Amino acid sequence: MQNRLHFKRCSNVTEQKKLLFKALEEEQNTTGYYGLPSQNIDELLAYANGFEDNIKNIVVLGIGGSSLGAKAIYEFLKPVKKPSRKLFFFESTDPINIMEILSKIALDKAHFLVISKSGGTVETISIFKYLYAQQSSASSYTFISDENSNLDKFAQEIGSKIFYLPSNVGGRFSVLSVVGLLPLVLCGVDIKSLLKGASLVKESFFNDGYLKETLLDKAIFYGKYHTTYNINCLFAYSETLRYFSEWYVQLWGESLGKRQQNSAFHVGVTPIGLIGPKDQHSFLQLLSEGTRDKSVTFIKIKEFHNELSIPNSKLPHLESLNMLNGITFHDLITMQSDSVIEALLKEGEIPLDEIVIEQVDEQSIGELIYYYELLTSLVGRLINVNTYDQPGVEAGKIILKNKLLQRLKND
Amino acid sequence: MQNRLHFKRCSNVTEQKKLLFKALEEEQNTTGYYGLPSQNIDELLAYANGFEDNIKNIVVLGIGGSSLGAKAIYEFLKPVKKPSRKLFFFESTDPINIMEILSKIALDKAHFLVISKSGGTVETISIFKYLYAQQSSASSYTFISDENSNLDKFAQEIGSKIFYLPSNVGGRFSVLSVVGLLPLVLCGVDIKSLLKGASLVKESFFNDGYLKETLLDKAIFYGKYHTTYNINCLFAYSETLRYFSEWYVQLWGESLGKRQQNSAFHVGVTPIGLIGPKDQHSFLQLLSEGTRDKSVTFIKIKEFHNELSIPNSKLPHLESLNMLNGITFHDLITMQSDSVIEALLKEGEIPLDEIVIEQVDEQSIGELIYYYELLTSLVGRLINVNTYDQPGVEAGKIILKNKLLQRLKND
Repeated sequence: MQNRLHFKRCSNVTEQKKLLFKALEEEQNTTGYYGLPSQNIDELLAYANGFEDNIKNIVVLGIGGSSLGAKAIYEFLKPVKKPSRKLFFFESTDPINIMEILSKIALDKAHFLVISKSGGTVETISIFKYLYAQQSSASSYTFISDENSNLDKFAQEIGSKIFYLPSNVGGRFSVLSVVGLLPLVLCGVDIKSLLKGASLVKESFFNDGYLKETLLDKAIFYGKYHTTYNINCLFAYSETLRYFSEWYVQLWGESLGKRQQNSAFHVGVTPIGLIGPKDQHSFLQLLSEGTRDKSVTFIKIKEFHNELSIPNSKLPHLESLNMLNGITFHDLITMQSDSVIEALLKEGEIPLDEIVIEQVDEQSIGELIYYYELLTSLVGRLINVNTYDQPGVEAGKIILKNKLLQRLKND
Repeated sequence: MQNRLHFKRCSNVTEQKKLLFKALEEEQNTTGYYGLPSQNIDELLAYANGFEDNIKNIVVLGIGGSSLGAKAIYEFLKPVKKPSRKLFFFESTDPINIMEILSKIALDKAHFLVISKSGGTVETISIFKYLYAQQSSASSYTFISDENSNLDKFAQEIGSKIFYLPSNVGGRFSVLSVVGLLPLVLCGVDIKSLLKGASLVKESFFNDGYLKETLLDKAIFYGKYHTTYNINCLFAYSETLRYFSEWYVQLWGESLGKRQQNSAFHVGVTPIGLIGPKDQHSFLQLLSEGTRDKSVTFIKIKEFHNELSIPNSKLPHLESLNMLNGITFHDLITMQSDSVIEALLKEGEIPLDEIVIEQVDEQSIGELIYYYELLTSLVGRLINVNTYDQPGVEAGKIILKNKLLQRLKND
């Protein structure tokens, strides 16, 4: 991947960079996600190999960090690399969502992956209870949870296979662990190349590759101006990245939206995922003329082998658009993104950068994922939050539990 | 619909309210969307009646304001009211998007609606050229454009039916005109009830109904604090509203993100669409503990007739979640939204309001659409922008044209 910053790097920050880099080096001892690129995946590969061909659907029961990562990668690759099995996600208690997925899968040709770090996620267990009442064969389920959780105990009791999350890996940083790798490998994704992509970015950052300076510069800019640019947009010019942007929204929003450590001060940079060229007709006006409160990262795909093109037709009264003739749609979309970038740069005062990934393959998406994970860790340090917790979601859970208990009492 | 504001209304603004209300009354003379609820739809109904039963797919070629509104309504109603024809949207030049839709439609059973206000939208004409090369029967196309546009002339030349956009209705305010009504009526949507919903909200606002004070109070709060709360979130607790939230993002972002009139000052309130409960596991942490830069509107659906429920099963080690037993998923999702609202209200400093729509039907979505259109007009006046133009998207278009011309020269 390439990353080009169009904004002015902060000057006189050599010392700050050294400290920041050192902090991240040290963080590797306590934070599990750093080690994921070099994990041993033999057990996963062997487990996937043992799956029967008559299993056609892999169905994830998970929400947030338990679904967004695998979905991002699966949907990114799908248009180019035909998956060997179809992957579905029950990721809401909305009955519309549940019925839609139920209408698409054949229960007897499906294998279910029940993923809950804590083992007590209300949405996931609700749906599991519903499905288990209809399909109670233990061999149709694989569980992924923290060791010793109630879900672990349940899986052991019924005799299903259980995988454990590696220690110190939070949900939203878990895509390159068994949480993401298991559903993906079962659908034919080359998880070795995926981890290789992540390794390349990790190496480049920690071993003085070109990404080291770029990531540090970008993070320091975001950190310094986090109250000015309190919104960060990811503007991806490819439909393949639609779900990647949902993964990014969770990673960024849940990691960086916090009370600062040792103070009560609320901080955060709000993530927004945009897809071009569609969102040129929705969001571009606001970017171009609205408040200067947004930094924007454009993502493009360099190689895309698709010859779909605009015919050389000459239609009466529409001659002014003959300049489109003969161009491939992929070239057109690239020219559209370049034009928008050029226009926004002319506007000025909008911190822009461009990421170019090589092509639609496992290595490229592995790179992009690890790039964003590192960037999140860096910015989290700079705005002085605990990047890896999420205390702000507990209050709602407690209120819900009380409502549910109250309902039982009233019955 | 009901709308309950949980934030403190601004005091001593009686005079401001009077002026604001008067301004909106006067705007009706120059801005076309106000008149749409009471338009005559006889021609549309007759045209739709003349369609053959063998037309199974209605395919819109349009982007932004030419597609988002019809899509919002169609997708809202779809899970509950089975459409009589399937509706598809070509709304991107991304080849992945184009190929995906092509794989789903049968060209000979499809009717195409080519929608471009200016008649020269690059994306729409590109895709039209591609499709027209394969299906050149004039009767397979209906065009919607401004009168005398090049697209109008082309349609007349080949002998296709053309409908005109009513004057002074901008793309993003056009959903209740032929732009939205034609695709919808062709798919069996009751457009009379849709307009009735819009009428009810309009009446309530302009004729001293309860929405008058609520809308004025909400707009005045948003206007007064637009630099403090520079982000507005719509948090809808139903998958049916997924595409409504995309429509809202365009309406809000493109209308309010501007240079102020008579000054060079950049203003804007950034729209974010969220869907619950999924986004509790992605965005809630940022709402609850992040920077106090967001106002939030929750939308719930009161009646939803679906009995899908959690079975009364008692699973070993998972007893603590037996409190979920017997509850319908719809009741659960309502309790989830109520719990999150309660938790955020306890946090404080987050301006919240709740909208409850009656059920999944045409009237309810018509109400919601008109409510948001009025609110946008009100806030636009208060932050002193021209709500109805979008000058900031032109620069990119000109650069693209130059790039395309340069390419021709190089050939």
